[in-house]
Amino acid sequence: MDKQRELCEALAAVEGDGIGFCEDYWERGTKADGYGLTRVLEGGRVFEKAAANVSIIRGTLTAERAKAMSSRGRQEIDPSGGQAYEACALSLVFHPRSPMVPTFRADVRRFRVGGKAWYGGGADLTPYYLFEDDASEFHDKYEAVCDAYDSAPSEHGVYEACKEWCDEYFYIPARREHRGVGGVFFDDLETGETSDQGARVRGVTDAEAFTRAIADEWLNSYLPIVHRRRDEPYGEAQERWHHQRRGRYIEFNLLYDRGVRFGLDGGRIEAIMVSAPPRVRWDYDVKPEPGSPESRLVDALRSPRAWASSTPARA
Amino acid sequence: MDKQRELCEALAAVEGDGIGFCEDYWERGTKADGYGLTRVLEGGRVFEKAAANVSIIRGTLTAERAKAMSSRGRQEIDPSGGQAYEACALSLVFHPRSPMVPTFRADVRRFRVGGKAWYGGGADLTPYYLFEDDASEFHDKYEAVCDAYDSAPSEHGVYEACKEWCDEYFYIPARREHRGVGGVFFDDLETGETSDQGARVRGVTDAEAFTRAIADEWLNSYLPIVHRRRDEPYGEAQERWHHQRRGRYIEFNLLYDRGVRFGLDGGRIEAIMVSAPPRVRWDYDVKPEPGSPESRLVDALRSPRAWASSTPARA
Repeated sequence: MDKQRELCEALAAVEGDGIGFCEDYWERGTKADGYGLTRVLEGGRVFEKAAANVSIIRGTLTAERAKAMSSRGRQEIDPSGGQAYEACALSLVFHPRSPMVPTFRADVRRFRVGGKAWYGGGADLTPYYLFEDDASEFHDKYEAVCDAYDSAPSEHGVYEACKEWCDEYFYIPARREHRGVGGVFFDDLETGETSDQGARVRGVTDAEAFTRAIADEWLNSYLPIVHRRRDEPYGEAQERWHHQRRGRYIEFNLLYDRGVRFGLDGGRIEAIMVSAPPRVRWDYDVKPEPGSPESRLVDALRSPRAWASSTPARA
Repeated sequence: MDKQRELCEALAAVEGDGIGFCEDYWERGTKADGYGLTRVLEGGRVFEKAAANVSIIRGTLTAERAKAMSSRGRQEIDPSGGQAYEACALSLVFHPRSPMVPTFRADVRRFRVGGKAWYGGGADLTPYYLFEDDASEFHDKYEAVCDAYDSAPSEHGVYEACKEWCDEYFYIPARREHRGVGGVFFDDLETGETSDQGARVRGVTDAEAFTRAIADEWLNSYLPIVHRRRDEPYGEAQERWHHQRRGRYIEFNLLYDRGVRFGLDGGRIEAIMVSAPPRVRWDYDVKPEPGSPESRLVDALRSPRAWASSTPARA
């Protein structure tokens, strides 16, 4: 909640006088079952909608979920279910008003069962017009964070593993497009080298510190891009494209996002749908002109690129 | 395709000069694997977006789908899969520009495996402001069609079974709301009295004729409502509510609709998303004032009513 407050204050400062976040504290049954704080800014000059959500959910694992988790390598979880769990998360989505400023999504999560904790999180960028420098700078910053926590640096270290996972997670099969230019994403990360032999991200010795460091990079990775692009001119055609592309954001969230599907199962629908962009449109079979800026964006979403400047180009 | 043409011509006539449907013929691999015709009207005076879609898909049943179908009482289907099938459908969604005119969705489907055919279909109304007379008139008309094909009329006959199925199908659990005021919905209907003992809708002796009769009622059930409500005045606040409620339409389609999920599996994404309303918005935690017209709509969506005038009130 401290981090949530810091984020909201920073965004309110970008907006300037008179625009800030509303605050909604909620409980799930009793506080012991779960609670959260949803904070939302709507109708800003820079951010048309921005939301940051904290949730703490406690319960007992069903056999179905326990089995799925245990099969993902969490050996402390009894696949027959029945164990108490606590899931807490801070997640945010910032939807700028201008199509020239990318959407920023990020979260950190901790899942606890039987004395063990697993961490997850990430940050990714969804542009509507492609500025390659923004994508590179964004990736460079997360690569630096990952490197600082990588106990065994290699050509396929912590950053590369998190970058690939992000590309894979934010993918819309029905569109054959990735949602944005990615960033980093990780899950099921536990502390200690010996226990993460089967893990997808290897080499992080302190999962909690790494997760905190990712969250500490959010504002630094995003706000410079906001300031650089917020005064770029645009017109109605760009705004229409922006709203059409926001449709993809919704399609991903509702059709594919595991987090949304998990949240709908007993969660608070408004705390989930608060991530939805405000104005969205679906027009039939929109196809950008070859060579246009819109088409260059779609090309970049079709095949993920090695955005970090230190990474050898893989294209 | 004849019915599709008739529908498009009728809508174009409502629009008047200069606005009509574009036409997109498509094939899935080769024509033997499937083909379809998507027809779309965008930016009309009365209809902001209207789409009618014909699709014919042929393939071989996977074990997973065969098992699901066989468990729904289709005894001719081998649950281990491998049989050839043909699925054809005509579906439509009409999204009016005015919040005072309800959205109309309808479809008819035929599924063939091993010499047997099963029929499905329906029609339902999604209002943004509730006019009770419209809902009653709409239900009355489908009740009359159902009665004409009901070989064993009873208090829970063909109409009641189809009405309840519609209420159940178009339900958004996460919102605890039905999508609209319903209509009729049926599936798995086969011809012949002896074979439908386990079916949900009983008493229809000619499934194909019944399905055709439902489709023949579409324009007659909807256009009078369009003409009655198209000139009702509305302002920005009503339009905002309209676009917010259209968000529910998307939520249902992407989170819950079995048809959408079936279609995404190898279908044509644009022929599916063509059903999306054009302009949509998500604002945080919208709660209509108690007693307002918006609140009266939500009340009606919370608990389905017996709209047909001949049906005894069940509330």
